[in-house]
Amino acid sequence: MEISIYRYLKELRSAVPLVQNITNYVVMNNTANALLAVGASPVMVHAKEELNDVVPLASAVVINIGTLSPYWIEGMLQAAELAREHKKPWVLDPVGAGISGLRNQALKRLLHLNPTVIRGNASEILALDNFGRAGGKGVDSTESSDAALNAARELNRRYGSIVCVSGEIDYIVSGDRIARVANGDPLMQKVTGLGCTSSALIGAFIGLGQNAFEEAVSGVAVTSLAGQLAAGKSDGPGTLQLHLYDCLYNLDQETLDTHLKLETDVIAS
Amino acid sequence: MEISIYRYLKELRSAVPLVQNITNYVVMNNTANALLAVGASPVMVHAKEELNDVVPLASAVVINIGTLSPYWIEGMLQAAELAREHKKPWVLDPVGAGISGLRNQALKRLLHLNPTVIRGNASEILALDNFGRAGGKGVDSTESSDAALNAARELNRRYGSIVCVSGEIDYIVSGDRIARVANGDPLMQKVTGLGCTSSALIGAFIGLGQNAFEEAVSGVAVTSLAGQLAAGKSDGPGTLQLHLYDCLYNLDQETLDTHLKLETDVIAS
Amino acid sequence: MEISIYRYLKELRSAVPLVQNITNYVVMNNTANALLAVGASPVMVHAKEELNDVVPLASAVVINIGTLSPYWIEGMLQAAELAREHKKPWVLDPVGAGISGLRNQALKRLLHLNPTVIRGNASEILALDNFGRAGGKGVDSTESSDAALNAARELNRRYGSIVCVSGEIDYIVSGDRIARVANGDPLMQKVTGLGCTSSALIGAFIGLGQNAFEEAVSGVAVTSLAGQLAAGKSDGPGTLQLHLYDCLYNLDQETLDTHLKLETDVIAS
Repeated sequence: MEISIYRYLKELRSAVPLVQNITNYVVMNNTANALLAVGASPVMVHAKEELNDVVPLASAVVINIGTLSPYWIEGMLQAAELAREHKKPWVLDPVGAGISGLRNQALKRLLHLNPTVIRGNASEILALDNFGRAGGKGVDSTESSDAALNAARELNRRYGSIVCVSGEIDYIVSGDRIARVANGDPLMQKVTGLGCTSSALIGAFIGLGQNAFEEAVSGVAVTSLAGQLAAGKSDGPGTLQLHLYDCLYNLDQETLDTHLKLETDVIAS
Repeated sequence: MEISIYRYLKELRSAVPLVQNITNYVVMNNTANALLAVGASPVMVHAKEELNDVVPLASAVVINIGTLSPYWIEGMLQAAELAREHKKPWVLDPVGAGISGLRNQALKRLLHLNPTVIRGNASEILALDNFGRAGGKGVDSTESSDAALNAARELNRRYGSIVCVSGEIDYIVSGDRIARVANGDPLMQKVTGLGCTSSALIGAFIGLGQNAFEEAVSGVAVTSLAGQLAAGKSDGPGTLQLHLYDCLYNLDQETLDTHLKLETDVIAS
Repeated sequence: MEISIYRYLKELRSAVPLVQNITNYVVMNNTANALLAVGASPVMVHAKEELNDVVPLASAVVINIGTLSPYWIEGMLQAAELAREHKKPWVLDPVGAGISGLRNQALKRLLHLNPTVIRGNASEILALDNFGRAGGKGVDSTESSDAALNAARELNRRYGSIVCVSGEIDYIVSGDRIARVANGDPLMQKVTGLGCTSSALIGAFIGLGQNAFEEAVSGVAVTSLAGQLAAGKSDGPGTLQLHLYDCLYNLDQETLDTHLKLETDVIAS
């Protein structure tokens, strides 16, 4: 029942999964560096003219909608369709869900392609859930963890996706299983794109193709723990970002055993 | 008469203004991190299909023309028009003014939308001023501070914009008021995009909506001071960039009182 | 016969060549910072509407195909044609050669514009060589240094380009001359885009316009040496990237004399 994060990490480092990312301009460099640091191999192709050739080569696909335009949305939809067709697991990061019509329309279409994993913060998960309800109103003002957790379970029922909600406590939900990661540090919110990093690392782990729930938990766990360790030796958000890659690269069993705060549970339905 | 930079910084950290940026690919990550470090909340939407929804949510808009294409120019013009319509203050960073026809045409159209603040280096400010003159010749070869200061005053008269000229001494000009910031460090020129960072932080401060001149001075002052402090503890430009975010994040009243070199004056007209 | 890398570095720092880059979204910030740190001046224009004005101002052009779309390919082809027309040396970085039809078609057209320098890893150089052969099969599975070296010599014969193959040992080939750089560190492979950095720094050196072979060697040598020195004082890939810029900025004659492992030779044909 207990998940051995270290076992997945060791397998990832040995398998070096190729992760195909369509992500936003702000975090592309960070995402590539985080994937390399954890032991995966990143590729970043976004053109619809090229995705047919590249998606079949990848172990997993990550789609992050941070900086959108119509041309990029076409590439995202095509990448998600190709992932389905070639039975590649894929992650959806719904950055800014609810803030615009363009974004909401793109997300609705992506959700209907049944992401293997959805990862967002509480507002984003609530906004996604609202799309499926009458009277949905974009970003919900109530961003309590409880509300987000209910939304996560509803999204899981509706689309079959494992849903990860990032926050002070990170939740990972799938069917009647739930995991809670109580690592991280408030300073991580002062660095852009650490949520995007979490999504990318989930992509690296689900590329292993063994147990998508446990792999999603592994991606969330290593990001939050590496961020916490990096914060502990940083004077501010600038140095945190660099130490994060060093911590991911150096993460070992002893560190995980000592510092990881992970609980898993079965939810009574 | 004296401007309390710390008061504005404290208010910014408390208000957490949402700053909508259309900026260049090279500095997007830096800009987002600098805004987070100073205490603001960045958003980076560039698509004309999405700006209608996002500009009304923002406290201020920053438009930086560093990496142009026709589609992005349309977004920039639309964002500036929306800022005017919704009475949001906005900053223009005229990167590379004078080096190409495409860039100069875009800048002429943006200037006619009356930026709240324009920030550039001496060559860029001189190039902008040349647009309004017969016989303008792109980037002027004379880049003396005096010439740039006259150009700044002329741009202020012509478009009503507060004009900031970055250099060894930074000047901020509006009507008969002038401020001079004598902080910074020559090593800052070896890091890409610190001028863009200054423009973004001006955007964060003018989002407070109290006194645009003093807020623009605040944005320039914290960037130049944080850069100077970061240079003091760095071995080169790589570490400077990271320490800059740490310094912005940790900036307090005592540091400002001890190190800031700010003078304000009234210019006899 | 011996190449004085330090002499070229000193001249570069004095000349401050303007290097026009069309590169990928992932590494733009790194590329600009590496060019600044070594002593060059970067410009990053990609729009076909603007290149006519900018290429003539530059000392050299760097084209890196990392993140492609049809609009960007048009800009790359135009920049290469302008470089030829204005007799500017230019560098081709064939990122991901062989992984897609779009990429291969773009590379074939760029090769026919005779890059001054081509720099890639062994797979990429082998893939480029395959384009010119009957039965070419994309990325070759044999990625031995010997095979890549033969491919490099063949590409040099076919297109007249100086060819650099990055790896544990870096090779630079032109006619009957060959140089080997035995610096670098395995940790460099865990940082995204250090190959792209090498290509950009080659661009900076060939902008001097004295001896393209020796300048290409200089670009490769300073990147691999700075990477090795940075790795020596880093805890992981995050800190390596930052120290790399510091090392480039601080590189002096004594460090080069002590640490550079460079051999040049004449190949019997």
